[in-house]
Amino acid sequence: MKPVKVGICGLGTVGSGTFNVLTRNAAEISRRIGCEIMIAQVGARRDNPDCDTTSTQVTRDIFEVASNPDIDIVVELIGGYEVALKLVLLAIENGKHVVTANKALIAVHGNQIFAAARKHNVTVAFESAVAGGIPIIKALKEGLAANKINNLAGIINGTGNFILSEMQAKGRDFSDVLKEAQALGYAEADPTFDVEGIDAAHKLTILASIAYGIPLQFDKAYTEGISKITAEDIRFADELGYRIKHLGIARRTAQGIELRVHPTMIPKQTLIANVNGVMNAVVVDADAVGQTLYYGAGAGGEATGSAVIADIIDIARNIIGGNTAASPPLGFQAETLSNLPILAMEQTETAYYLHLKAAEKPGVLAAVTKILGQGGINIEAIVQKESDEDYVPVILLTQQVFEFQMNKAILEIEALDCILGDVTRIRVEHL
Amino acid sequence: MKPVKVGICGLGTVGSGTFNVLTRNAAEISRRIGCEIMIAQVGARRDNPDCDTTSTQVTRDIFEVASNPDIDIVVELIGGYEVALKLVLLAIENGKHVVTANKALIAVHGNQIFAAARKHNVTVAFESAVAGGIPIIKALKEGLAANKINNLAGIINGTGNFILSEMQAKGRDFSDVLKEAQALGYAEADPTFDVEGIDAAHKLTILASIAYGIPLQFDKAYTEGISKITAEDIRFADELGYRIKHLGIARRTAQGIELRVHPTMIPKQTLIANVNGVMNAVVVDADAVGQTLYYGAGAGGEATGSAVIADIIDIARNIIGGNTAASPPLGFQAETLSNLPILAMEQTETAYYLHLKAAEKPGVLAAVTKILGQGGINIEAIVQKESDEDYVPVILLTQQVFEFQMNKAILEIEALDCILGDVTRIRVEHL
Repeated sequence: MKPVKVGICGLGTVGSGTFNVLTRNAAEISRRIGCEIMIAQVGARRDNPDCDTTSTQVTRDIFEVASNPDIDIVVELIGGYEVALKLVLLAIENGKHVVTANKALIAVHGNQIFAAARKHNVTVAFESAVAGGIPIIKALKEGLAANKINNLAGIINGTGNFILSEMQAKGRDFSDVLKEAQALGYAEADPTFDVEGIDAAHKLTILASIAYGIPLQFDKAYTEGISKITAEDIRFADELGYRIKHLGIARRTAQGIELRVHPTMIPKQTLIANVNGVMNAVVVDADAVGQTLYYGAGAGGEATGSAVIADIIDIARNIIGGNTAASPPLGFQAETLSNLPILAMEQTETAYYLHLKAAEKPGVLAAVTKILGQGGINIEAIVQKESDEDYVPVILLTQQVFEFQMNKAILEIEALDCILGDVTRIRVEHL
Repeated sequence: MKPVKVGICGLGTVGSGTFNVLTRNAAEISRRIGCEIMIAQVGARRDNPDCDTTSTQVTRDIFEVASNPDIDIVVELIGGYEVALKLVLLAIENGKHVVTANKALIAVHGNQIFAAARKHNVTVAFESAVAGGIPIIKALKEGLAANKINNLAGIINGTGNFILSEMQAKGRDFSDVLKEAQALGYAEADPTFDVEGIDAAHKLTILASIAYGIPLQFDKAYTEGISKITAEDIRFADELGYRIKHLGIARRTAQGIELRVHPTMIPKQTLIANVNGVMNAVVVDADAVGQTLYYGAGAGGEATGSAVIADIIDIARNIIGGNTAASPPLGFQAETLSNLPILAMEQTETAYYLHLKAAEKPGVLAAVTKILGQGGINIEAIVQKESDEDYVPVILLTQQVFEFQMNKAILEIEALDCILGDVTRIRVEHL
C-alpha cells in the first residue's frame, strides 16, 4: 500500500517531538495502520538540533508545504494566530487534511476553519491542542459518544498546576514559585497566558464545544487567573479539607452552558485534587457512564507529539479506507450544532469560600451573616482564624448560589466599616 | 440517510442499559453520527421490566437476530462461552458487524472470532469488555497509537477493589467484607471469578494483546486472587506507605511480555492507589506520551452500555462512510501480530513484601538475611512488628528480583526451624 504523506510545519518542541516519534516508531505505527506514514517535507525557519532531518526534504517556506501536491496531511505546529490561520486555510483549499496542536487558533478561528474544511471535504484534527498527550478529545467525541455530557472540569494548564502544587506542598508564595517555574522553563518570561487562565480558556472552549455540540465561543468564556491566590488561602483551604486548583469548568444547565476558568476549591480526597506538578487531568460527568477521568502529560514535545500522530493515524486510516464520513471536528454534524447560550458569569451557580479581614470588635459576624441571609445565601461554615495582624481572618463557606447574588453581597460586606480591605472569594466545587 | 440497524441479544443488566441509553439519547447520538441508530430487534429469553420494548420487535430466539437480513450490527450481551461463540460466529458468517461486552469470550475465543471477521470483512468491537465505561481500548488502539507501550497496570475488577478498599478503610477481614459485597450485589454467590482474578485476567489478556499486538493468550496469564490478603498485611503496608490493590499488569521486557494478575503493593500517593470502591482505573506507560491514566465505572448497565454504544457508533460511522479499513480488533494489522513470548511467572521481575512469623529467639534475622543474600536478593527494609502471639511478625521489603529467585528463597526460609508457618509474599510495584 502506498504511504500516507505528511508535511510538518514548525520544528520547535512539538514539531521535533512529532518528527522524532514518527521516525522512531515508524515500524510500530505501520503495524497498526497497514501502511507507512512518510514525512514528505518539513517547513521550518531554522533547523532543530534535536531532529535529524538529513534525509528529509526541508523548506524554509511553510507555505510551500501547504501547496506541495505530494502531501496528504499538513501538520501545523508553528503556533500563533495569523500566519497559522493563513497556512491552515491554504492547506485546506489545496485539499489537504490538517492536524494542529494550536489551541489558540482553534478556539478563536475554529468555526471559520471547520467551515472551510467542510467545503473542501477534508478533516481538521486537534487532539494535541487540549491536555497534550491525553486522548481527551477522542474520549469526548467517540469514547463517550453515547452520552449527554453534564459537566467537565480540567486541570488543563501545567504551568498553573505546577505553581499551585508547589505553593500547596511547601507553603510558598505565588511570586516565589513563579520565578522558579520560569527558571525551570515551565513558565514563559511573560506568564500572563498561563497564569491568567487564557491558555486554559482556549482549551476549555474547545472541550465545551465537543461536549455539547456548540460553536466555539472563546470570547464568552470567563477567565480568572491564580496570581492572587495566597499561601494563606491554600492553608485555610487545606484545613477545611480542600485543595485549590486552577480549573476549566463547563456545565450544562437548563438555561445554557457555564464556561469558566478560575481557581477552584475541591475536596482533597478527589482524584483530580491529587493531580500535581505539571500534569493535566480532565474529569467528565456524563449521563450514562457517570464520572470518568483522564490523566497525563499536558505538555512536552513527545507527549504532545503522541496526540499529533494519533490524529495523523486516524486520518491515514480514513484515507486508506476511503472513508467519506470521518467524525467531524467537534464530533457533531455541523448542521446540528446547537445555539444553547453560554451563560454570563453572573448567571453561573457555585458555592463559595470567602476570606474577610474583620476588625476586632463585636457585631462583625452578625453584620456579615445578615447581609448573606438577606441575599439568600446559606452559610455552610464560619471559622475565625488566628492572626498576628490587627484584624481577625474570618473564613466562610457558602452553599451554592448565583454569582450575581454573591457579587452583590460582597459589595455590601466590603462597604462595612468593620471589614478591612477586599474580600477574597474562591469558588468551591464538589465535582 | 437511512438508519443503521442493530439487534441486541441479551436483556440483562448491560442489555437493558444499552437499550435504554440508545433510546433516551437517540437525538444526541444522531446529532453526532448524522443518521439514526435503530434497534431493529431484541433477542432475549425473557422481558426485562427495566426496558420498555413495546415498540421493538422481540424474539425469544437470539439466533434469529444473527440471521435477520435487516440488521447491520449484532450486539452480543448474553455472556458465557458456548452459546455466545455460536451466536457471534453466525452473525459474522451472515456478514454482520459484532459488538460484544463478553471479556471471557474475547479472551478465550478472540483469535478464532477475529479470523472469521477478517474472512467475512466485518468488524468485531469490544470496548465494553474491559473496564466497563472507560474508553481504554480506544485509548490504546487509537489515542496512543503513536507509542510503543512499555507497561500497563489496571484495577479492572470492581468487586475485588471494593473488598480491598473496605478492608483498607475499616480494618475489616476479607470474609467479612465479601459477605457484605454479596449482600450489596457487588459479588456473586460464587465469587471465584472475581476474587481469584480470573475476570481480571480475561481483561488483562485483552489489554495486553492491544498494547503489544500479540494474539490473545489467556492460558498464559498468571492469576492470583485476594482471598489470602489479611487486614494485618493491609495495615503493615499502610505503615510502609503502600496500598494493596488487585492489579492486572502487563510489561514489555527484552525477553517477552509479563502478564500477571495478583495483589500488589503500590505507593499510596500514586493516583491509582486512591481509586477506591467499585471503580476501575488503568495506568499506561508509553514511550512518547509517558504515563496516562483512565478512570471510571467498571460495571453497571448504563456505564457498560455507554461503551457498547460507542462501538456501535464507530461501526455506524464506518458503514455510512463506506470505510473499508476500519481499525482492526486489536489495533494492529492481523498479519503483523508478533510472536513475542508471554513469560512464565518465574521469569517475571518485581520487588517483594515478605511477612514472616519469627520465633522469639536470637539469630532469626541473620538466618533469613543470609538466605536472601545468597539468593542475590537485596533487602530494602526490615521491620519487626509487635504481636500478642508467641512469635514476632517480621516484614521485609526487597529490591527487584526474578520470581524464581524469590520462590527458592521462600522455600529455604520456610524450612528454617525459627520460622513458623508460611511466608506471606506480596509483590511490590512502583508503577
